Amino acid sequence: MESIVLTDVCKCVHTPELRLGEAELPAKARGCRVVKHTMHGGLSDDVETVEIDNGRLSVVVLPTRGMGIWAMWLGDLRIGWHSPVRGPVHPKFVPLAEPSGLGWLDGFDELLCRCGLVSNGAPEFDERGQLRYGLHGRIANLPARKVELNIAEDTGEITLIGIVEETRFLFHQLRMKTTITLAPGENRVRVVDEVTNFSAQPGSMELLYHINIGRPLLEAGAAFVAPVKDMSPRNSRAAEGIANWQRYGEPTPGFVEQVYLCELAAANDQRTGVLLKNAAGSSGFGMRFRRDQLPCFTLWKYTGAESDGYVTGLEPGVNFPNPRSFEEKHGRVRKLAPGETARFALELAAYDTPDEVNAAEKAVRGVAPDLSTTIHVVPDATWCA
Amino acid sequence: MESIVLTDVCKCVHTPELRLGEAELPAKARGCRVVKHTMHGGLSDDVETVEIDNGRLSVVVLPTRGMGIWAMWLGDLRIGWHSPVRGPVHPKFVPLAEPSGLGWLDGFDELLCRCGLVSNGAPEFDERGQLRYGLHGRIANLPARKVELNIAEDTGEITLIGIVEETRFLFHQLRMKTTITLAPGENRVRVVDEVTNFSAQPGSMELLYHINIGRPLLEAGAAFVAPVKDMSPRNSRAAEGIANWQRYGEPTPGFVEQVYLCELAAANDQRTGVLLKNAAGSSGFGMRFRRDQLPCFTLWKYTGAESDGYVTGLEPGVNFPNPRSFEEKHGRVRKLAPGETARFALELAAYDTPDEVNAAEKAVRGVAPDLSTTIHVVPDATWCA
Amino acid sequence: MESIVLTDVCKCVHTPELRLGEAELPAKARGCRVVKHTMHGGLSDDVETVEIDNGRLSVVVLPTRGMGIWAMWLGDLRIGWHSPVRGPVHPKFVPLAEPSGLGWLDGFDELLCRCGLVSNGAPEFDERGQLRYGLHGRIANLPARKVELNIAEDTGEITLIGIVEETRFLFHQLRMKTTITLAPGENRVRVVDEVTNFSAQPGSMELLYHINIGRPLLEAGAAFVAPVKDMSPRNSRAAEGIANWQRYGEPTPGFVEQVYLCELAAANDQRTGVLLKNAAGSSGFGMRFRRDQLPCFTLWKYTGAESDGYVTGLEPGVNFPNPRSFEEKHGRVRKLAPGETARFALELAAYDTPDEVNAAEKAVRGVAPDLSTTIHVVPDATWCA
Repeated sequence: MESIVLTDVCKCVHTPELRLGEAELPAKARGCRVVKHTMHGGLSDDVETVEIDNGRLSVVVLPTRGMGIWAMWLGDLRIGWHSPVRGPVHPKFVPLAEPSGLGWLDGFDELLCRCGLVSNGAPEFDERGQLRYGLHGRIANLPARKVELNIAEDTGEITLIGIVEETRFLFHQLRMKTTITLAPGENRVRVVDEVTNFSAQPGSMELLYHINIGRPLLEAGAAFVAPVKDMSPRNSRAAEGIANWQRYGEPTPGFVEQVYLCELAAANDQRTGVLLKNAAGSSGFGMRFRRDQLPCFTLWKYTGAESDGYVTGLEPGVNFPNPRSFEEKHGRVRKLAPGETARFALELAAYDTPDEVNAAEKAVRGVAPDLSTTIHVVPDATWCA
Repeated sequence: MESIVLTDVCKCVHTPELRLGEAELPAKARGCRVVKHTMHGGLSDDVETVEIDNGRLSVVVLPTRGMGIWAMWLGDLRIGWHSPVRGPVHPKFVPLAEPSGLGWLDGFDELLCRCGLVSNGAPEFDERGQLRYGLHGRIANLPARKVELNIAEDTGEITLIGIVEETRFLFHQLRMKTTITLAPGENRVRVVDEVTNFSAQPGSMELLYHINIGRPLLEAGAAFVAPVKDMSPRNSRAAEGIANWQRYGEPTPGFVEQVYLCELAAANDQRTGVLLKNAAGSSGFGMRFRRDQLPCFTLWKYTGAESDGYVTGLEPGVNFPNPRSFEEKHGRVRKLAPGETARFALELAAYDTPDEVNAAEKAVRGVAPDLSTTIHVVPDATWCA
Repeated sequence: MESIVLTDVCKCVHTPELRLGEAELPAKARGCRVVKHTMHGGLSDDVETVEIDNGRLSVVVLPTRGMGIWAMWLGDLRIGWHSPVRGPVHPKFVPLAEPSGLGWLDGFDELLCRCGLVSNGAPEFDERGQLRYGLHGRIANLPARKVELNIAEDTGEITLIGIVEETRFLFHQLRMKTTITLAPGENRVRVVDEVTNFSAQPGSMELLYHINIGRPLLEAGAAFVAPVKDMSPRNSRAAEGIANWQRYGEPTPGFVEQVYLCELAAANDQRTGVLLKNAAGSSGFGMRFRRDQLPCFTLWKYTGAESDGYVTGLEPGVNFPNPRSFEEKHGRVRKLAPGETARFALELAAYDTPDEVNAAEKAVRGVAPDLSTTIHVVPDATWCA
């Protein structure tokens, strides 16, 4: 196994630019490519990107933004969205501390954006109106202090490991080790996050994967497929759309977002998954994860105008995106004993043929073949703050 | 026309340093010079500057600070001010999000500093005391994502174009295209800002050009000349100074600022302008703009000690620098339909002979030869929050 | 005297990397070394460090963090602490403006961290709950705009001078000139800070040196030695520990911090000092300063688990770390007339033999041989907010 440390702050290792191709990669990784690049200018100034291309699927990882994934491409099929925010945005330009708690939105444009680790969800204020927790937390705006690239000579598998810490002296000490793996020629990327409470005091965490998809997969007639056991609309606005909550409309200026909170069914081994497919069923995006690791699933629909970021969010999480104290009250904050590590595994796949989409849909439905879904017409008071 | 892209984040183009002189510029631009530089260290770390010298007038533009103009020089005559803040300051060191709403002041030292685009003016708080809009907004602390230099071979005219976006997903999407032009040998620079609401939803904007001048133009006996139709002191402090509101005193430690809000007269074609001249009338700074584009004019006098930033602000604007909701109530916020672009043109000129100053004064007075000025002794309740 | 300007923003001088050794330093500085380095990646991205090694003692200075001292080494003996925050942290990643007022803690990991200059101590809020002063102020998160290295050819003495400004237009204008000196072969570093109010208006300042030490000096049985005249525990938690307030226990998960406020005795010439020694009395850290410059001394004990930052703070200051208005009320804020400069001198020494530790202890006790200490069992209401 070849190992290249791209960044290690403690050891003064840092590689701003790198390009590994045919000549540098082992024979098993023929057709693969790794490109490390540092952006310059505008809101992206100093953002580092690592592109891993396995010959079929290409993924751009953002060490500067908490090891998020900016976008991925299956050949010409781009999986991601077109946010009106032009990113990736460097954390120094994201006003997380803004008293409104909404500054996070200034940096939001990735395919995979982690929300957490201390908190995520809607901003929370104390009784005086002072911000306690900003929208979606800080992890997506914290840079990795160590980034390492591993290439397995026997399989050609390419792995990027990043370490990001969210620490406030006397308050919290959370370390996330992210492992992102692509095998040559596959249409999927595997993400494993291990979050450790490296304090000697008990701690806790929230985590939600804000996975966002727009054109071309999202279009009028696109559909969300999942083994949904229970679903509750977040509010009356979401309730308006219940009849078609798994279908998408065309871009609609002024569309007000709709959010659906779900419990998914899982196979006996806890595996479950979801699928987004285009109207023709000829291309799609699938996700696999474990229900015991990520028990809460949120579907976000924002089919506004294309210029405003026509997008849907598929969001498996430890918790629902409510204010932190609400989630804590309902037992959806993950406790971490001193030294304890929580593990979260996620697989993202892209499909560009009807056969692949059909197979993916079968697999999703297959985890609970005889499932009947409970739809809460009125928002569930224990799920929706 | 020769075109050089200095920064284009999307296309990975970035030129940290550039120097165009005799050898690189076309014959028509003989004596001109363009220097792109990146600053290092202190609060200026990573600030990019573009100096354009047309052989007579030299202007330093700040792409990193929303395409502001740091200072300009007509030969040895420096137009700008000496802020106690040593800048230009990189936005990463300006605490715009500070709950006081005053963090903007930590980065304030330019000749031309735009205030806006979502809001400007005094900070505004909601009923709980939480900051809604910080002093003078964000545009001066947002870096340009595209910067392009054009040089016309037939005229030698040098143009710098910058694109800056102020966007918050789900809230606002404003794009400013700034065009700054100098023609060889002229004593003026032309600035055109085009602000587009690139959302499919209706939007709005504020804009005020905070144009600040200190020594040597500002001195005891220096005068402000403008075709003033109506003037209201902002508060009782300003009212104290009404007798000499268009004249300046010497540096006075402890001087409390005075602000005068004006409606200017304009020619039939809407053109108007103002002049600041030194005591002897031998040097000056003039500004031309259109009243239909910038209907509100604010004069700011802060003739404190030199060490504290002896300065006056000539501030044409869409609005007066009151809290945003006050301006909105009084119809001074510019609405922008989906896709609509508002255009603002401004010309800044420097004069270093009595003849030039006299001519400039005649031109300013000429827009409304028989003007009588209404002076409100008590602050006008619709202008002053 | 050889002088090398490492950074001068005004003059466009900046040296990101520098290494002076045998070949470059004068003969008198044989065995010394100076290394300037810029860090990359993670939270340390763009942090500049200057290491000065006098052949015996090595000190790492942080121009990017207000000329703080990250750590020092006497041979293999490291003086500093192991914060759970992995730094040094660049100010762009420290959310000082966060409404909680606690964002400063995200960047706290130095041996010597200045708290001030406008304010320090616990956060202070106005009557609406809005943050007025964040914890420990801004000076540790402001970069030096000028950094100069001087090497005396006749003595080999190496001096680093830095200038840091904390300025808000219309509010405060404080300039700190820091001089850090090491002489070849000595076991100590001298720090002199000169703070000038460069406004023509009266000003004021607070300053506290947060000097933090963990392993190996800090251990069960380590002791704090000082000529204490008066001591008051800050609160009931500190009062619990009065019996052993000058001794340290072993790392204790969940330990709640204890703070002791002291007035020290001084010699007739105002000199005084303190010592921290390990359990065996075989190694130690000493500090010398003047009581008229730094009249308030705070001892902070946080002997939590090692993973949580087992540490003690020896904190000479102009003031105690209470909210600013409390200190002002009790006359512990330093007033500065227009143009006035306040001077603060501090000497930090490291000891690695029992003889040195004994000599240091004698010197500390020697400033007031017949001292009797007054211990306030209940927190003193004029010292403890």
